[in-house]
Amino acid sequence: MKDFSKYQTQELHAKDLKHNMHPFTDFATFKEEGSLIMAESEGAYVYDTEGNKYLDGIAGLWCVNIGYANEEMGEAMAEQTRRIPYYSSFGHLTTPPAVELSEKLVSLAPSNLNHVFYGTGGSMSNDTAVRMIHFYFNRLGKKDKKQIITRTDGYHGSTYLAMSLTGVEYDHIGFDLAPDLVHRVSAPNVYRRPDGMTEAEFCDFLVDELEQKILAIGPERVAAFFAEPIAGAGGVLVPPAGYHKRIADVCKKYEVFLVSDEVVTAFGRLGEMFSSESVFGFQPDIITCAKGLTSGYIPLSANLISDEIYDVISVPQAKGAMFTHGFTYSGHPVSCAVGLKNIEIMERMDLCNHVKKVGKYFENQLKEKISSLPIVGDVRGSHFMMCVENVANKETKELLPAEAEIGNRIAAKCEEAGVLIRPLAHKNIMSPPLILNVQEVDTIVETLHKGICDVQDELIREGLWKG
Amino acid sequence: MKDFSKYQTQELHAKDLKHNMHPFTDFATFKEEGSLIMAESEGAYVYDTEGNKYLDGIAGLWCVNIGYANEEMGEAMAEQTRRIPYYSSFGHLTTPPAVELSEKLVSLAPSNLNHVFYGTGGSMSNDTAVRMIHFYFNRLGKKDKKQIITRTDGYHGSTYLAMSLTGVEYDHIGFDLAPDLVHRVSAPNVYRRPDGMTEAEFCDFLVDELEQKILAIGPERVAAFFAEPIAGAGGVLVPPAGYHKRIADVCKKYEVFLVSDEVVTAFGRLGEMFSSESVFGFQPDIITCAKGLTSGYIPLSANLISDEIYDVISVPQAKGAMFTHGFTYSGHPVSCAVGLKNIEIMERMDLCNHVKKVGKYFENQLKEKISSLPIVGDVRGSHFMMCVENVANKETKELLPAEAEIGNRIAAKCEEAGVLIRPLAHKNIMSPPLILNVQEVDTIVETLHKGICDVQDELIREGLWKG
Repeated sequence: MKDFSKYQTQELHAKDLKHNMHPFTDFATFKEEGSLIMAESEGAYVYDTEGNKYLDGIAGLWCVNIGYANEEMGEAMAEQTRRIPYYSSFGHLTTPPAVELSEKLVSLAPSNLNHVFYGTGGSMSNDTAVRMIHFYFNRLGKKDKKQIITRTDGYHGSTYLAMSLTGVEYDHIGFDLAPDLVHRVSAPNVYRRPDGMTEAEFCDFLVDELEQKILAIGPERVAAFFAEPIAGAGGVLVPPAGYHKRIADVCKKYEVFLVSDEVVTAFGRLGEMFSSESVFGFQPDIITCAKGLTSGYIPLSANLISDEIYDVISVPQAKGAMFTHGFTYSGHPVSCAVGLKNIEIMERMDLCNHVKKVGKYFENQLKEKISSLPIVGDVRGSHFMMCVENVANKETKELLPAEAEIGNRIAAKCEEAGVLIRPLAHKNIMSPPLILNVQEVDTIVETLHKGICDVQDELIREGLWKG
Repeated sequence: MKDFSKYQTQELHAKDLKHNMHPFTDFATFKEEGSLIMAESEGAYVYDTEGNKYLDGIAGLWCVNIGYANEEMGEAMAEQTRRIPYYSSFGHLTTPPAVELSEKLVSLAPSNLNHVFYGTGGSMSNDTAVRMIHFYFNRLGKKDKKQIITRTDGYHGSTYLAMSLTGVEYDHIGFDLAPDLVHRVSAPNVYRRPDGMTEAEFCDFLVDELEQKILAIGPERVAAFFAEPIAGAGGVLVPPAGYHKRIADVCKKYEVFLVSDEVVTAFGRLGEMFSSESVFGFQPDIITCAKGLTSGYIPLSANLISDEIYDVISVPQAKGAMFTHGFTYSGHPVSCAVGLKNIEIMERMDLCNHVKKVGKYFENQLKEKISSLPIVGDVRGSHFMMCVENVANKETKELLPAEAEIGNRIAAKCEEAGVLIRPLAHKNIMSPPLILNVQEVDTIVETLHKGICDVQDELIREGLWKG
């Protein structure tokens, strides 16, 4: 039995409000309502300080892939701490876990990616990818080949540079971005593609748009294209069939590096350890990953880098010159030990094959049971990475008024019923732990179904929707 | 007894060379020599995979403040993992350790800093500080007040933005920086101040230089000044007496925020939990910290933010608008639990008072025993943050030829003798665990003394130095 008496909820609330500044927060409602404090966990479930239990439909933040409170993971941390809890990997220094994990990651990645550079999160990983690519072209004397292309609604993190890569325009409001560096092409948003365009025509449009963008900037000025195989925080956008391979071909044609941001899609969420090649059939030049790499138990990210890039950037600029990039916690031994343990657990549980079955069932159930609801415009995604887009009108795809707060309302209904689903503007996102069984999948789908139905009734009663 | 038979050194070497890309590395010598693989540890000592034991004079990378292999730290990780190993602190979500640590940090920080924002390392912490300050001035409608001033030889990290703040020019070579954002003033390098200037005159010069720089850019365009209380990676630069307070006054005069980068100086290295106010008598608007916050056992950083800044940035731009900045691992429960445990251990051991005694002894012994050596131009620093600057000529302060590799040579001699000291170009840096006893201090000082003497003889023999 879990003991919740040790948590003083009111006191924690007060301290949290006073001293803890949350990321990605609406401070007005935060100051009114305070926090939901998650204190305990088990498998696919989390508990707040009051002992309320929730089936976590979002795995924390797309990351707790093996589920919560896995004792082996804690033991891996403690064991590495007993050996050596930290050493830097600067210069010629390293630790066994950093070495072993790099070999393991390379064995799982596409065959051209043989070098690993560590950081502590997805933002840092994408930030590093740009810096490496700039360094690469500087080494080749191509000082003008620096411009980056990303996509509207792509999410690549929140450092100054990573947020400049990010194409979710809402996230830019009020902040400054790096000038003269990043260019945008369209989101591969099949649901909201131009009227009258088939999916195949939309794919042609997207591929042509990227090529025209490269030509407009000048291929001699374009260094890289960043894309998530399936855009996550931008609303789970699954590109049209054939998109990835054709995009990769365009990049190759103009010597533009393709960086595949697999912060969400790697480590089983789509049924493969990496999805770029195994799911979508293309070979990127860099894969950035984090989250599922440790199932979120400890901060860690990795850049998987091609031989082509490594072979240039690993030749010093002059005798004694260093590659002067990296972080105190690059290759952190405890983080890497946890990454190794996480992958070991995933392999032992055969979690990728589990996702191919149960994740596919989740995808199918959501599409089957939720799509037909009057307020639901689109159910999309793949396996354990799913999104429901709510609309006022299924035909016109028109949105509900902002005051309907449709995403928040549905999430709140589900939370009351003990299931966590993430609101994202008018959408709802699901990215559960990969260990979910069929019954738990059914619980999520049924709870969401009921939540949407209840919200539909409410909105009609409140005059916010015609039904 | 530690068992080293489980480490296959040759195999680890081979994998490391093939797959693990190190930060801040000279890849030419790396490819020739391979790595020194640190595998075990205990107190102030680390062991490589062959069982060789080293007294760690650098605490990993200025960070293992409580010493290695502390079992309580591993148990804190395991215990938090059994409770909840991850939850996000996005929106209204949080976890008890994130809350408790924020209150604890605020209790230790200067009285105007009452809000904590978490990241996973110093680079991210400084990157975040700039983004927050930009957001602040955007909220006030001061869209042009964005420029940042930093110092030559200041080190602020390695994201695109953090490296743009960094004033160590060597680290910029081959990389691109953010344009039109960062301005530089002189390093407070007392040893290499202009000829004929007293220390007091040098302080006047530095303070005036900052004021003139602000006026030249235009105070309405300058957002912040970033400085480490004692510059670390730039060579342990202790500013002239009175500098900090006068710099803070200049910043206040022009509404320029003062960001104190305490990534190295916080958590006991100078004998106080934070050094800005307690050691140097000034109140910054933001403190950034990492490293010693967890003694490096797990990635974590924190920004301590003034009420003045928080009160502006925590008012939404519009109804429902979010502060769209932050990271998956902001407020990570395991990281925060480890931070709490680390501070608890520091307080229980009364480590700050220990540093005031033994760290001061270290500083005094180094100055007394090393300064007089013919090749040593300067011994500087404070408590457990020290630097020896080697020169060809004590009078002219002229450097040795690069091929002497003086910093590396001295570090190598000490490593052979079982003491780790960090080479930094022609300098050597020491930042040991704070638990060092007097005997261990003596060992470091004596080993360094002998190492320098041996290197002096070698350089004369090789004709690289006249003596």
